[in-house]
Amino acid sequence: MQEFELINRYFKGRGISRRDVNLGIGDDCALVTVPQNSQLAVTTDTMVCGVHFFEDMSPRALGHRAIAVNLSDLAAMGAEPAWVSVALTLPHADVQWLEEFTAGMHEIAEYFNVQIIGGDTTQGPLTVTVCAKGTVPEGKAITRSGAKTGDWIYVTGPLGDAGLAVEARKQHLDIDPEWLKKLTHKLEYPTPRVAAGQVLRGYASAAIDISDGLLADLEHILEMSQVGATIQADKIPTTEAFRQSIEGEAKWPYILAYGDDYELLYTVPENHKAMLDNKLNQYGIDAVCIGQIRGGEGKIDVFDGEHKLDISAMGFEHFAEDEAC
Amino acid sequence: MQEFELINRYFKGRGISRRDVNLGIGDDCALVTVPQNSQLAVTTDTMVCGVHFFEDMSPRALGHRAIAVNLSDLAAMGAEPAWVSVALTLPHADVQWLEEFTAGMHEIAEYFNVQIIGGDTTQGPLTVTVCAKGTVPEGKAITRSGAKTGDWIYVTGPLGDAGLAVEARKQHLDIDPEWLKKLTHKLEYPTPRVAAGQVLRGYASAAIDISDGLLADLEHILEMSQVGATIQADKIPTTEAFRQSIEGEAKWPYILAYGDDYELLYTVPENHKAMLDNKLNQYGIDAVCIGQIRGGEGKIDVFDGEHKLDISAMGFEHFAEDEAC
Repeated sequence: MQEFELINRYFKGRGISRRDVNLGIGDDCALVTVPQNSQLAVTTDTMVCGVHFFEDMSPRALGHRAIAVNLSDLAAMGAEPAWVSVALTLPHADVQWLEEFTAGMHEIAEYFNVQIIGGDTTQGPLTVTVCAKGTVPEGKAITRSGAKTGDWIYVTGPLGDAGLAVEARKQHLDIDPEWLKKLTHKLEYPTPRVAAGQVLRGYASAAIDISDGLLADLEHILEMSQVGATIQADKIPTTEAFRQSIEGEAKWPYILAYGDDYELLYTVPENHKAMLDNKLNQYGIDAVCIGQIRGGEGKIDVFDGEHKLDISAMGFEHFAEDEAC
Repeated sequence: MQEFELINRYFKGRGISRRDVNLGIGDDCALVTVPQNSQLAVTTDTMVCGVHFFEDMSPRALGHRAIAVNLSDLAAMGAEPAWVSVALTLPHADVQWLEEFTAGMHEIAEYFNVQIIGGDTTQGPLTVTVCAKGTVPEGKAITRSGAKTGDWIYVTGPLGDAGLAVEARKQHLDIDPEWLKKLTHKLEYPTPRVAAGQVLRGYASAAIDISDGLLADLEHILEMSQVGATIQADKIPTTEAFRQSIEGEAKWPYILAYGDDYELLYTVPENHKAMLDNKLNQYGIDAVCIGQIRGGEGKIDVFDGEHKLDISAMGFEHFAEDEAC
């Protein structure tokens, strides 16, 4: 196990130092100070090799993504990310691998002013669990349960890229390498919508991050808020890489049901709509209105123009189960 | 993955509800309130099947232990445990297994007034990562770095039982089944010294929990505090089950180097010694003085009576590496 204790070197004394971290890596616990009149927001996400990512994913991307998906959950609550704990299980301690993996972690952590305050490194099948902590002004967090009939439904950016990258890899779809590179970058280096999440506070009535697919995540909001929704699928933004890589009806499952894009899905009441659009615009965030909350608990109608889409059979088995590490 | 979403049912709406949890399981994040003038203490520990526990360990014990080892880290800082996040990776969702595993978690969580505020359940090789959060009055946490020459060294309870249980299982030592049962119980259901840790605040100069073995964990204190130590090994408490199961020199590695007992090791200055002994006594904690801090950074001398023990070769490979799950 000695070998694994060495790994702490890749974390200890590296990355940023926040002033609210009173004791970082190296004792039984880390100690941090939560600002007054704030709540602590906590989330945790595990990524298992062969289940949540391909075995040959670059370690730098894995490090980035493991932090990103957790910050995305904080963003969806309107929280400001502050500290993360990293539990890393590795078959063996490979110096080159660790160097790149931790570089990926430190890069995104620094970008979002997040400090890695501790963790545990163990031997076993490749798995990364991050527990992210952030703060949100008391009573200002955005939950999944506040959507009301008439509220408008938005996404913060284009959907479908990540799913297409996964399926291209699995099914060897015939995608131009240049476009595929862009799609894969979206899969490997998702950007959590941290700024957007904080701008939504006080305006949005509900929010969630799109990790499981637009429809599945919308369903969570609908269930918790006891409402239904109409989605105008043709309004959902996509990238040029996506549009160049897939055509016709085949695109809908990627846009509506895949997930892994980590955009935010939120609802906003009519009286806050214009103000929020403006605010987001000031931050350079191009959020797009894609539908409206209706009565009828849990019911979702999806249209392409005037044509109603059959969404009953949309779903994916993400990643190959036989691709164990 | 649908199957795995069901698992949340074993956590959601079960266990205790703390008043400082503003939002529990079921949204993008949990929201909690940290009391004013307190710091947040955070720790995380992973247990991998075949590395940190035997494949056939009872799921109830596994649930207990995964929480216990984390609360033990909080105890070592003098923190009061409050909330835990649980990341569980499982090969398949077995209802009976989950029922027992979560019962083990809920039991210990309830006992220590801890709420499970969230987590992630994923498919893959059996691994449990817990991230525990607690609170400690500002500036009152006990670190590893405060030990001074002349301070007395204490342990909060008997050592060696857990190690003997592991090695008995691996090497089929000839231990009376009744004693082995007691030893195994200590391995499977360790009691984190949560009350003791809080009593130590304001009196102890340094503390750590004994997870890696007395000498290894003492070494952490010595390094951080830049001091040395003399240990009177014959003073270290053991249980009757331990004394009945092993004799002579063979016992020392279990007592001095094994770990997994999760007692606290702490140092206390002469002028706080009597007061702290009294306080712990009031709580029914039989802490035992086993040595003293000396000069000479990192140096440890260990005596059995007047006889100096050779500790250079003491160490264990915990659990069999080939016993993968």
